[in-house]
Amino acid sequence: MAKMSRTNALLLSEEGARFPMTIIGSGVWGGSFSLDRAYSLEEVRTAASPHVADSNRETLKEALMKTGYLGDIPCSYRSTPMAAHFELHIEQGPHLVSSKQHIGVVTAAQAYRWYHIRVTGSDAHSGTTAFEHRADAMYASAQMMVKAREVAAIHGCLATVGIVQASPGSINTVPGLVTFSLDVRGSTTDLVQRVETYLREEFNLIARNDRSRKPCSVEWRVDFDSPAVEFHKDCIDCVRESAEAVVPDPKSQIRHMISGAGHDSVSTSKQVPTSMIFVPCRDGLSHHPQEFCTPQSCATGASVILQAAVRYDRKRFMGSV
Amino acid sequence: MAKMSRTNALLLSEEGARFPMTIIGSGVWGGSFSLDRAYSLEEVRTAASPHVADSNRETLKEALMKTGYLGDIPCSYRSTPMAAHFELHIEQGPHLVSSKQHIGVVTAAQAYRWYHIRVTGSDAHSGTTAFEHRADAMYASAQMMVKAREVAAIHGCLATVGIVQASPGSINTVPGLVTFSLDVRGSTTDLVQRVETYLREEFNLIARNDRSRKPCSVEWRVDFDSPAVEFHKDCIDCVRESAEAVVPDPKSQIRHMISGAGHDSVSTSKQVPTSMIFVPCRDGLSHHPQEFCTPQSCATGASVILQAAVRYDRKRFMGSV
Repeated sequence: MAKMSRTNALLLSEEGARFPMTIIGSGVWGGSFSLDRAYSLEEVRTAASPHVADSNRETLKEALMKTGYLGDIPCSYRSTPMAAHFELHIEQGPHLVSSKQHIGVVTAAQAYRWYHIRVTGSDAHSGTTAFEHRADAMYASAQMMVKAREVAAIHGCLATVGIVQASPGSINTVPGLVTFSLDVRGSTTDLVQRVETYLREEFNLIARNDRSRKPCSVEWRVDFDSPAVEFHKDCIDCVRESAEAVVPDPKSQIRHMISGAGHDSVSTSKQVPTSMIFVPCRDGLSHHPQEFCTPQSCATGASVILQAAVRYDRKRFMGSV
Repeated sequence: MAKMSRTNALLLSEEGARFPMTIIGSGVWGGSFSLDRAYSLEEVRTAASPHVADSNRETLKEALMKTGYLGDIPCSYRSTPMAAHFELHIEQGPHLVSSKQHIGVVTAAQAYRWYHIRVTGSDAHSGTTAFEHRADAMYASAQMMVKAREVAAIHGCLATVGIVQASPGSINTVPGLVTFSLDVRGSTTDLVQRVETYLREEFNLIARNDRSRKPCSVEWRVDFDSPAVEFHKDCIDCVRESAEAVVPDPKSQIRHMISGAGHDSVSTSKQVPTSMIFVPCRDGLSHHPQEFCTPQSCATGASVILQAAVRYDRKRFMGSV
């Protein structure tokens, strides 16, 4: 399975949790996500979405039917097994391209957790309500966003706020409700957990706001939890051996690295030997309209994934994996 | 003209500036806003709005026609003059209610300015982009929001962020664009200007972000500018005298105060003698579903505004105003 591009569309569960569309299929195949739940996920509206009535939100199943992609092959590692899983992807980061390396042998994927944070204060008039009488959910949220970044940096992790909504959404009203997404990533599951624990405490302190007579409150919801994954040694070996056979100067042009992003391979690795291959992308850009991979890098990546699969098959045949 | 309730709906100009619906009429009457511009304002969608197609956004003129409120009396201080303007309003703040006072004699209205802030960074993947490679428009905006509050507090002013939008709006994408509203208020026009000057410098520093290799940029647009207004001495006198005649204990139950909010009276005061009367509201709440004024306070306020108009007319007849 090779995949050279990636959208960042999201789908919404009945409870309002958000999931990345691109890794739902592998989640169902790997057993971490039920088929019914996947089918019922609804499209998420963003600033970029056309405005259509809320009742018309399309489910994943409806979209698959509409586009003719609702197949009849069971999506399960039990009924549609694979011997191993290799995945080719752009790096989505700057390391390969800036060091002029050709292939990343991916040995692991970092942990990440997605949270939906809900800060509740009280609507009030912006011109007549002194700061000490405000329960300003936006001010509290802004402080939390800054704190999330600081705490993540201290722990060598990443924190990102990608979605934010303030209600009631009026220039001259102090927002009584703000919700925002928080994406925390780290090299180990434990590090992400430590950042979360720390931030839960800090967010509570910010919401309480001792300088105001009116506190806010804050609630957390975990929308997605992807523990750190180490890929399979046999698969990693196949990728490395293939890369060494394909690139002109293996010593300088191959890099062992871990994946910062979530991938289908995280789901498949729970059921079958798995690893990944990275190729460079322009300026390390991803989730951006200018995401780009040269035809040459695509071809190099395709050669490596093909050879890796053939090597793995040969080893299976020889009984050495 | 008495007005006892207030929505906080907003209207959008062609250039994207936002205006409060409730004071557009007096702005046109007072000559600070052209009729054509007012008619062409479009409704603003908020989190609370029903989702309908963008092309269906209603203009103010269409809404007036639909509801039968598009009249034929010219809206202008020239062709439809008034001798004076009195306005009755809930205080929208806690001072009267917490001191058990009945009437606020409003002598002035504070200055306020509404800004639309646009922070531009660069979309990037949340899992693969290290902090030093990010131009994170949301992180920059969050720091600006916190800074706005701090700077306003130092200057004895108010600052509020009521609307925020992050694009592209994906959990696992560092936002490359964030826009937010900023409402700054102060007792004098000069104070608001000083906060603005200070914040323009601070926002530039935040956007530049010396700890990252990738700066953001920030642009300001002034959407609405309401300089501080002192109401007319003759009108204030009429309101005070009326209040003294109406409330049981004038010494303890009347308060001289300035208005924190914008009102029609700010526009009318540019053309005719104007002042305002405040009555208490429950918990000082406004722009909130629980905004409430007791029937007794409504009646007291109505008596004061009626007497003030009669007093003013009598003084005109006597030639004393």
